[in-house]
Amino acid sequence: MSKFVYFFGGGKGEGSKEMKALLGGKGANLAEMTSIGLPVPPGFTISTEVCDYYYKHDNTYPPELDTQIDEAIARVEKVMGRKFGDPENPLFFSVRSGAAQSMPGMMDTVLNLGMNEETLPGFIRLTGNERLAWDSYRRFINMFGSVVMGLEHHHFEEVFDGLKKEVGAEVDTDLTAEQLKELCSRYSALYEKHVGKPFPREPRMQLLHSVDAVFGSWMKPSAVTYRRINRITGLLGTAVNVQTMVFGNMGETSGTGVAFTRDPATGENVFYGEFLMNAQGEDVVSGIRTPREISELGSEMPDNYKQLLDVRQTLEKHYKDIQDLEFTIENGTLFILQTRNGKRTGFAAFRIAVEMVEEGLTTPQEALKQIEPDGVTHLLVRLFEPKALAEARKEGRRLAKALNAGPGAASGEVVFSADRAEEMVNSGKKVVLCRTETSPDDIHGMHVSEGILTQRGGMTSHAAVVARQIGTPCVAGCSELDIDYGNLSMKVKKDDGRTVTLKEGDVISLDGITGEVFEGPIATMPSEVIQVLIDGTMKAEESKTYQNYVKIMEWANEFKKIGVRTNADTPRDSDYAVRFGAEGIGLTRTEHMFFGEDRIAFMQEMILAENEETRRAALEKLLPFQREDFIGIFRAMDGYPVTIRTLDPPLHEFVPHEEKAIARVVEKTGIPKEKILAAAERLHELNPMLGHRGVRLSVTYPEIAEMQVRAIMEAACIVKKEGIDVKPEIMIPLVGHRGELRFIEKIARPLIEKIFEEQEIKVDYLFGTMIEVPRGAITADKVAEVAEFFSYGTNDLTQMTYGFSRDDAGPFIQHYQKKEVGIFDTDPFAVIDEEGVGFLVKLGIERGRKTRPDLKIGICGEHGGEPNSVKFCARVGMNYVSCSPRRVPVAIIAAAHAALEE
Amino acid sequence: MSKFVYFFGGGKGEGSKEMKALLGGKGANLAEMTSIGLPVPPGFTISTEVCDYYYKHDNTYPPELDTQIDEAIARVEKVMGRKFGDPENPLFFSVRSGAAQSMPGMMDTVLNLGMNEETLPGFIRLTGNERLAWDSYRRFINMFGSVVMGLEHHHFEEVFDGLKKEVGAEVDTDLTAEQLKELCSRYSALYEKHVGKPFPREPRMQLLHSVDAVFGSWMKPSAVTYRRINRITGLLGTAVNVQTMVFGNMGETSGTGVAFTRDPATGENVFYGEFLMNAQGEDVVSGIRTPREISELGSEMPDNYKQLLDVRQTLEKHYKDIQDLEFTIENGTLFILQTRNGKRTGFAAFRIAVEMVEEGLTTPQEALKQIEPDGVTHLLVRLFEPKALAEARKEGRRLAKALNAGPGAASGEVVFSADRAEEMVNSGKKVVLCRTETSPDDIHGMHVSEGILTQRGGMTSHAAVVARQIGTPCVAGCSELDIDYGNLSMKVKKDDGRTVTLKEGDVISLDGITGEVFEGPIATMPSEVIQVLIDGTMKAEESKTYQNYVKIMEWANEFKKIGVRTNADTPRDSDYAVRFGAEGIGLTRTEHMFFGEDRIAFMQEMILAENEETRRAALEKLLPFQREDFIGIFRAMDGYPVTIRTLDPPLHEFVPHEEKAIARVVEKTGIPKEKILAAAERLHELNPMLGHRGVRLSVTYPEIAEMQVRAIMEAACIVKKEGIDVKPEIMIPLVGHRGELRFIEKIARPLIEKIFEEQEIKVDYLFGTMIEVPRGAITADKVAEVAEFFSYGTNDLTQMTYGFSRDDAGPFIQHYQKKEVGIFDTDPFAVIDEEGVGFLVKLGIERGRKTRPDLKIGICGEHGGEPNSVKFCARVGMNYVSCSPRRVPVAIIAAAHAALEE
Repeated sequence: MSKFVYFFGGGKGEGSKEMKALLGGKGANLAEMTSIGLPVPPGFTISTEVCDYYYKHDNTYPPELDTQIDEAIARVEKVMGRKFGDPENPLFFSVRSGAAQSMPGMMDTVLNLGMNEETLPGFIRLTGNERLAWDSYRRFINMFGSVVMGLEHHHFEEVFDGLKKEVGAEVDTDLTAEQLKELCSRYSALYEKHVGKPFPREPRMQLLHSVDAVFGSWMKPSAVTYRRINRITGLLGTAVNVQTMVFGNMGETSGTGVAFTRDPATGENVFYGEFLMNAQGEDVVSGIRTPREISELGSEMPDNYKQLLDVRQTLEKHYKDIQDLEFTIENGTLFILQTRNGKRTGFAAFRIAVEMVEEGLTTPQEALKQIEPDGVTHLLVRLFEPKALAEARKEGRRLAKALNAGPGAASGEVVFSADRAEEMVNSGKKVVLCRTETSPDDIHGMHVSEGILTQRGGMTSHAAVVARQIGTPCVAGCSELDIDYGNLSMKVKKDDGRTVTLKEGDVISLDGITGEVFEGPIATMPSEVIQVLIDGTMKAEESKTYQNYVKIMEWANEFKKIGVRTNADTPRDSDYAVRFGAEGIGLTRTEHMFFGEDRIAFMQEMILAENEETRRAALEKLLPFQREDFIGIFRAMDGYPVTIRTLDPPLHEFVPHEEKAIARVVEKTGIPKEKILAAAERLHELNPMLGHRGVRLSVTYPEIAEMQVRAIMEAACIVKKEGIDVKPEIMIPLVGHRGELRFIEKIARPLIEKIFEEQEIKVDYLFGTMIEVPRGAITADKVAEVAEFFSYGTNDLTQMTYGFSRDDAGPFIQHYQKKEVGIFDTDPFAVIDEEGVGFLVKLGIERGRKTRPDLKIGICGEHGGEPNSVKFCARVGMNYVSCSPRRVPVAIIAAAHAALEE
Repeated sequence: MSKFVYFFGGGKGEGSKEMKALLGGKGANLAEMTSIGLPVPPGFTISTEVCDYYYKHDNTYPPELDTQIDEAIARVEKVMGRKFGDPENPLFFSVRSGAAQSMPGMMDTVLNLGMNEETLPGFIRLTGNERLAWDSYRRFINMFGSVVMGLEHHHFEEVFDGLKKEVGAEVDTDLTAEQLKELCSRYSALYEKHVGKPFPREPRMQLLHSVDAVFGSWMKPSAVTYRRINRITGLLGTAVNVQTMVFGNMGETSGTGVAFTRDPATGENVFYGEFLMNAQGEDVVSGIRTPREISELGSEMPDNYKQLLDVRQTLEKHYKDIQDLEFTIENGTLFILQTRNGKRTGFAAFRIAVEMVEEGLTTPQEALKQIEPDGVTHLLVRLFEPKALAEARKEGRRLAKALNAGPGAASGEVVFSADRAEEMVNSGKKVVLCRTETSPDDIHGMHVSEGILTQRGGMTSHAAVVARQIGTPCVAGCSELDIDYGNLSMKVKKDDGRTVTLKEGDVISLDGITGEVFEGPIATMPSEVIQVLIDGTMKAEESKTYQNYVKIMEWANEFKKIGVRTNADTPRDSDYAVRFGAEGIGLTRTEHMFFGEDRIAFMQEMILAENEETRRAALEKLLPFQREDFIGIFRAMDGYPVTIRTLDPPLHEFVPHEEKAIARVVEKTGIPKEKILAAAERLHELNPMLGHRGVRLSVTYPEIAEMQVRAIMEAACIVKKEGIDVKPEIMIPLVGHRGELRFIEKIARPLIEKIFEEQEIKVDYLFGTMIEVPRGAITADKVAEVAEFFSYGTNDLTQMTYGFSRDDAGPFIQHYQKKEVGIFDTDPFAVIDEEGVGFLVKLGIERGRKTRPDLKIGICGEHGGEPNSVKFCARVGMNYVSCSPRRVPVAIIAAAHAALEE
């Protein structure tokens, strides 16, 4: 005979935490806790195999199930010394669903099962609390009616409100036991009227109906949809947990509470929680009564408190992680209702992980696994002061929530243009730059702002990429905004429907970790890690946080296998990245270098040149600047490889479009205004992302590539003579066809040989390409005939694989993620789309290595700093990931996770 | 002993035309012609295996080669009754390279091989022409020096010019025999000076050096590049053809000429060609002497002419195709030097094909194979009158050559805006609309213009697609233009470097078949097929051209296997397409319907709506228009499937941007101007091709899809009640994720059921999607869970696979095709990129049919009407191709080719 029912109680559970597939997450954990000696209210779990049977056999049950349930009930009765349905000494149950993975949409809890007019007097005798009994019973009828039978909740409410009016009661608690008894009788009538049958008084019938409802809810559309969206497959079904009811509201020796085994905000090793005497769980969270500090339980119920401290120890020892637990004390007896790994802040995660290892509770490997890679960001940015933030929330100052595009908290005056931002900062103000979208014209304003807020654009829009690169908090794609540049104001439609208008100079605050925007100022606090590591304004020994950070990063570096590089365009960024642990540069964007005040004019001269000769003359002027840039970076990256990408963006990005900027160029270069306007017109493209950029520029103007290759290799030769271990990698962007790369190679290689002769020194270098056009991945075998390395540009690759412009797709990608639409669960620009983009990545690796087995492969798109994507890159066999300097620690931890999960 | 040398002569060739791999194309054909009794000058071919051996054995030859060459020379000597190197009766050879495929970049011809001071007297005796002898010898030294030894040609020219000056000669022919003899001696000295060795006088040495040079040229960079670009692989190498020299310039009974077996311009079955007495081949083509009509040879050399007419018969019977032949008469003996399939116009191809079948020369299958599918276009458009065109060329009126984006010839006054075009046409003028690029705002002007010329944009830019759809000649991406809207003028930089300025009202002509643009008018003539088939202005029995057209199309339809549908948006286009042979509609673009005068205002109202309710109200007004459109199309397509695509383009395309258009909308809808400007701003996207369009619109505004589905299915129900056999297919564009399609399906299917109830009739329909985003192809297995058919949108798919905006990529795609760049051999928007885009197409078919084996698959991008792409579609197993109405005959012929090639 198959086993369908698993008992737990009396110190022994028939299951364990490993049996989630059969018993569901909840059931497995109840059995586990019972077995390790925790005082769990006894009960039993009906396995997921029954659910499977139910659907395969036309909604019927295995014949042996009945007997097994009866036997399990008998065992519970024995442990509890009470009987289910017994008028003298009644036992009550709760019934809950529970699959292997938590799953909204399925049937929720039914409590107080077993109550009826026969068992209530016994309950009253046991508790001495008539009001409690009838109140529990009316809740049961309500819950059973709505949860099990689908009777709409408002019917019960109407009856309740009617009675309150009749007796002149203001709130629920005004009703007497007698009135509650009357309410129960009215509820029963209501039930019978709508369901067409009397309310089932027989406890066993109550139980079987409830079990039936749980299994039936497995196929409810909302549950099916949830599984589809979250790609949950391969489950047999849900399990059903039937557990003894315990009552924290039986009187002054009863109570209930929730607790963390450590402080989840700071990570401090103290017991942390709150409780209420004579109360049920929902009273603690409802906020009607103010809960008390958990330590005060020591004076109220010293024995139970001591017992609870033991439970805390047992749980941490057993689960090797901070636990979040619920308990109830029923007439002086402690019961543990639930435990789970506790959610914690990034700060706390680091402290807890380090201290648990020090305490001998966990190994470094186990500790590392408990750290969310993204959590390290909390240690590296300014954050809102927790109290100030809580206050802002309480005051309803939250304006909107959009994409968390650049981490960190910022507070400042609203400003709508880059020029104005500069002016206001120069006059001593702090500003938040608010734009519909940003462009390279706004860079100077972005640099001086505390934070950046955009109306359009996604996780890899210009604003987001630049913000992360320069470490400025950014909230992007905030479609609730309506910016009116003309009136220097913006409207924000708040969640509550109200519209707030903000003018230049009004203060807002934004949190780039949560994507939230607030009205008014919120105090922020600096990062200790940054103060020690970068600013040097604090000493390592003064900061426990810094020490924890170092410890974790040491472990992560020890375990990880895939390399972690950084995307950096300046010696300063390169230096920071090395301090954060980068092992090289995966992407230097040379175009950013052209925006400097001292060189943009030459760049514009180059673009406005009318023939190759004048273009070469302008390039000649840019060469020394580029060479100096590379010399600086090579020096900072001594011993590490440095990948430098040739010019990528369309040339129009360098041509001024605004009156003021044009005037500046006219003044600097002497080029007439009409010529600049004509060039802007000539270079205008309908879809610049798919236009004349990347390698296409180098094919049409080979002299640009020539100048850049010369700058890179001359710089390399010069620093090598200084004794620097230089490892340049020349990277050609946007290659979709081998011929493009071959064309450049034929220019570059002979030129480099010539430079070696001129410089009288040789430098090892690699010549490679970005794979960011789908065709580059598809023809990777051909491309690898020329390329010595591939670097995946997954921003562009995602853009083209999906056909989503990263500057325009923000709003509809957000729409796709809405629950009622449910097409995306994550933004493919944030987390790599393994099914689509990932297919091309794998194909390219496979085909590329077929041609060149030792092909070096990395990623330098924004995904290189996103934990799930980093793990993907490790799984598919890349040599390294590369990300912005501040994401390096995130990538290192994710890389360690990837190795530990192998 | 292996055979390396293949003899031909005396009526027998050791090879045949099937042996191209071994003997090269030229060698195989020489052997073949010899065997069928044509008087080919005897000779021999050294096989490609020798070339292979040469490269595998360090540039040496098989030991047996020497003997085989000697034997072959002896056989030639025997046939000719002369001896190689004999002073009395000398034999001379030509040496030519010849691989299996014609290949520029390899060594060219060396003539007169065997001449030296010993053999020349014999030659003089034989010909009695001393001047001819020394002239031939100096040519040989020059050719051998430059072609075989790589001595630069200008050295010889300098010596020649020096001598001419000395003797006071104006032109070459002024030199006497004696002076030419002196020239030969100076050439020999020049040769010795530069090569470092005396000129080889020994004929056998001359021959071996020449053979060596041919084999050496196989690996010349230019030849290697040519093979790489043209993807020529798998060849062993080149062969070498050594053939007896014959001289058409031996005197008055000698001559030379070229001829076609039929008229290549009209296809008429007459012998067509020209000749010169006492001349060599190069004299016929050089234009110094005016050649005579071939028929006149009948009076000059009646026997040879009769012989030539026999050759004509023999060739056509044997090759079963029109032949283009070269002949030489040496002292009254006719020699055939070469024959190949003749190039012909589209007209001629049809006439020749039909008549050859009628004459019993070919089968319909053979005839069809000889027709270039694109050639049918010549029968369907206006063409320049050949004489007028020749005159324009002679006058140097060609301005530029760009993309042949819409076939046909046009002549008219230059105009720079759509509004102005309309005005001028209304005042009775014919115009050619010239724009930097076109947009939907220009449609009204495009409709009234004779031709369209754009400065930017590729083969699938807006201008090109619309032009082909409406049948207007179009030349696109003409980067030599510089349009100045402000001054209503444009500059054109001509090939010769001159810049021409054209103003509004100046006349230009353009040829959309060749992509050429001319200054001034060129007369055009209408298409007889169109006059019969569409306009009804001519009767079928009056037009032989039409009858030929019908015959060929009948055969093609009989043989082809893949279906051919059309892209049509109106009942009129649908009707035309059926007349052209379409078997259904593969794409109806519903957006084009919204541009009508009577409905664009409602469309704009819909877009400017501020909430779902007002949007629905506007949609309600559009519904009857759409329904009527579909009713019209369904009626025209009775019995055929009709695929209708829901709204695809970004909404901003419907919002006016120009002052005048905005004013019109304000007047029509009463919507204030500020609101329109705000909407334009709100809908603006940086990369609209990758923006909010296609299925993304339907997901964010499901009410649009609802209205369209309702219009389609109500129309279907209505016509079915009329007795029409209606087969609607609802197509959702731009799907990259199954979830998108599922979202729309969940709206559409219940709605359709409701419509069936309302209409009290049911209609079979299909629900499917376009595959045009790379991710759609990659996840085709998932998408096919929902889609009942796929239609490949290869315009967008190419755009995203390559990352090339079809509106912006024209200029650099043209650059990529330049010979010195050599990255592309064809524009991937014109001919499907099999390696990249084709991979995704095949992947999608494979994965889609894995999920749904009976998945119906077609293509509706512009490639659907391009012959090579049609063949690709047939090979990969698509059910149909769909193209614009006028491309339907092209696709049908290509489809027949695909079936015949199977």
